[in-house]
Amino acid sequence: MTLPEGYSLRKLKESDYDNQYIDTLKVLTTVGEISSSQFSDLFKHWEANSSIYHPYVITNSVGSVVSTGMLLVEKKLIHGCGSVGHIEDISVASSEQGKRLGSTMVAHLAELSKELGCYKVILDCSEHNVKFYEKGGFKNEGVEMCKRFD
Amino acid sequence: MTLPEGYSLRKLKESDYDNQYIDTLKVLTTVGEISSSQFSDLFKHWEANSSIYHPYVITNSVGSVVSTGMLLVEKKLIHGCGSVGHIEDISVASSEQGKRLGSTMVAHLAELSKELGCYKVILDCSEHNVKFYEKGGFKNEGVEMCKRFD
Ligand SMILES: CC(C)(COP(=O)(O)OP(=O)(O)OC[C@H]1O[C@@H](n2cnc3c(N)ncnc32)[C@H](O)[C@@H]1OP(=O)(O)O)[C@@H](O)C(=O)NCCC(=O)NCCS
Ligand SMILES: CC(C)(COP(=O)(O)OP(=O)(O)OC[C@H]1O[C@@H](n2cnc3c(N)ncnc32)[C@H](O)[C@@H]1OP(=O)(O)O)[C@@H](O)C(=O)NCCC(=O)NCCS
Repeated sequence: MTLPEGYSLRKLKESDYDNQYIDTLKVLTTVGEISSSQFSDLFKHWEANSSIYHPYVITNSVGSVVSTGMLLVEKKLIHGCGSVGHIEDISVASSEQGKRLGSTMVAHLAELSKELGCYKVILDCSEHNVKFYEKGGFKNEGVEMCKRFD
Repeated sequence: MTLPEGYSLRKLKESDYDNQYIDTLKVLTTVGEISSSQFSDLFKHWEANSSIYHPYVITNSVGSVVSTGMLLVEKKLIHGCGSVGHIEDISVASSEQGKRLGSTMVAHLAELSKELGCYKVILDCSEHNVKFYEKGGFKNEGVEMCKRFD
């Protein structure tokens, strides 16, 4: 897939704290106030567990983050000690939607999970976004169940 | 929740390789041949990442594994650097179903995710098992989408 001129896809950097990473995630849900040291701790946790967490961003022509995505690789016992990729927190800044950034991010994370040896990659989404993922080759496979504590 | 006389819930041990852990998971899906060294490597990966992976079992009155369950704790940025619990690979040996082992395992992993500070706990299941999770206080929240590579 090709990105618009000047856009690129890369791994998240610690300096993206000051580069619209958090604002881009606000499209998705509540984020709240995140201090630079909270972000730093989280970034270090992801780095310390880098075989599991794979956070990516797409930047625009001035280098600002305009899309986010996370691949979580879970090692299981089933399927011959197989791994499953979990795609999480896909978001595209409102003003940048409809430019194939979301589909490029999802395709990249799916490809990465395949390269890392996963036998499948899964994600949970709202009914509203099912068609978007179907266009990317995903199929409905089950029901997401949830219990909230907040 | 109370387990039948003589049954107990505990963390997975490396010695459960020879204790029906793998057979119990066969109720769920294809497992394949897992060698003792493959199991050992997987167990070590889970241990090395013990803030993320929380594998549990229920044993019966002779100490054999009869139920399995995994809690995966994912640290996110959204929701004020919140954590989400993922319940995975819940299974109960065929001959032991209907004794509240499954619901006890799920309730334990949900409680653990709450103790570990998660703002929610989620899982994916088939349409067939939705009622089981509803009885445990879970609600339908979205759709599971999947792409397979095998
Ligand atoms: C959903 C989202 C990730 C899509 O990203 P995007 O960059 O705007 O989408 P793309 O340009 O890559 O779209 C690819 C295709 O999917 C279609 N599409 C996008 N969103 C869609 C939706 N909600 N329903 C149906 N089709 C959709 C596009 O029209 C396009 O179709 P085409 O191939 O026929 O031209 C983005 O709009 C977004 O961040 N929304 C808010 C947050 C969110 O809902 N995240 C997903 C959580 S599960
Ligand atoms: C589904 C499973 C985990 C349930 O465990 P269990 O120990 O047999 O179930 P419990 O005894 O704890 O059941 C608790 C309640 O849910 C009900 N229940 C169990 N399975 C159900 C189902 N599939 N549909 C509707 N209700 C169900 C029980 O009847 C009981 O109801 P009650 O409170 O009214 O008496 C177990 O049967 C199993 O391992 N099945 C095969 C593998 C599988 O499907 N795993 C889940 C993957 S998402």
